[in-house]
Amino acid sequence: MTSAATRADSGLFVCFEGGDGGGKSTQAQLLVDWVTSTGRKALLTRQPGGTVVGQEFRRIVLSPETGDLSPRTEALAYAADKAEHVDTVVRPALERGEVVVTDRYVDSALAYQGAGRVLDVDEVEQLMRWATGGLRPHLTVVLDLPPEAGLGRFEGRDRIEGESLEFHERVREQFLALAARDPDHYLVLPARASVESIHAAIRARLEPLLPEPTEDVQ
Amino acid sequence: MTSAATRADSGLFVCFEGGDGGGKSTQAQLLVDWVTSTGRKALLTRQPGGTVVGQEFRRIVLSPETGDLSPRTEALAYAADKAEHVDTVVRPALERGEVVVTDRYVDSALAYQGAGRVLDVDEVEQLMRWATGGLRPHLTVVLDLPPEAGLGRFEGRDRIEGESLEFHERVREQFLALAARDPDHYLVLPARASVESIHAAIRARLEPLLPEPTEDVQ
Repeated sequence: MTSAATRADSGLFVCFEGGDGGGKSTQAQLLVDWVTSTGRKALLTRQPGGTVVGQEFRRIVLSPETGDLSPRTEALAYAADKAEHVDTVVRPALERGEVVVTDRYVDSALAYQGAGRVLDVDEVEQLMRWATGGLRPHLTVVLDLPPEAGLGRFEGRDRIEGESLEFHERVREQFLALAARDPDHYLVLPARASVESIHAAIRARLEPLLPEPTEDVQ
Repeated sequence: MTSAATRADSGLFVCFEGGDGGGKSTQAQLLVDWVTSTGRKALLTRQPGGTVVGQEFRRIVLSPETGDLSPRTEALAYAADKAEHVDTVVRPALERGEVVVTDRYVDSALAYQGAGRVLDVDEVEQLMRWATGGLRPHLTVVLDLPPEAGLGRFEGRDRIEGESLEFHERVREQFLALAARDPDHYLVLPARASVESIHAAIRARLEPLLPEPTEDVQ
């Protein structure tokens, strides 16, 4: 069940990854605003929950009411969310030449369901690659911070945020290991830097990669 | 993401497979009643929907309100249901030495999501084997009938039942092909035979395979 890794040949696919509380959604929004200001179309989306049915998968995996799930169940529910998201949202937008920015993608599954849980990371990766048809981002931005810093920012915690500090440390190490093995497609930034400096670093890295402005944008 | 095929070394795991309207649930119930009458514990269950969270996956994949799903999404939602069902219901009962009878299992996924849809059957099989940790039934009973016979029995149809006759013909062929490749673990019966004769054939095949009666049953 291998899927060859592919990068879309139109559009630009950018993912934000990292632990909770690192500012992913803030930076994703700033990036989309900037891309739009340059006359290009940009789509801001997320995993899990970037589609209607994906919101149901998101609720199942994140709601404390779900209770314990088998680790394979959890990984498969995330994979189902990804399949729907890539097929119905991400690929169509890339084919239209747009910049797609997603808050979490495959790496989160590898970090949380692989390193964080008890599953074989290689098997989880095969699963997620199959689910996404092998589609890889042009760039993954990892907003890195020690888990105790991120977790301190939350009052109410969901099923995943409520895991132990050790769990979140394994998750962080997994994000960094994924970045280290493919530096051409990763940008690791310290999440404790200022919002402005992080945004500037992302812009600098992405500017040469931006697609031609879409014709029907004023 | 291969999982070696395994059969439980305690208990007895029996699956009913075949198209809709073939009498699977009737025969499953008769089988469980008979096993119980012999002083053994039996568990009647089903896929999808044999667990609390599985009922949510079942609703997602079967409800007409879901609308179109990407084929991979559908396969992954079924796989998630299977993972939870095997880990929390089927394996624990087998480990207690019980007879577990399920209405549909992996073959339904291979038939409906593989042959019926557009996915590679080998890939779907790898997915479902991973989801179930490679657990295979001791016996799969296929209640075989021409799809036009089974579909005629339904008034309101769900997402799957509402597919074309050609779809259901591919599904039937896939069930028969799976049985043909492993006759030691399959029993194919014509669903149009009488309820009593089908039940008798299943009993005859299973009687030598029954586990020792569980001690705490009167």
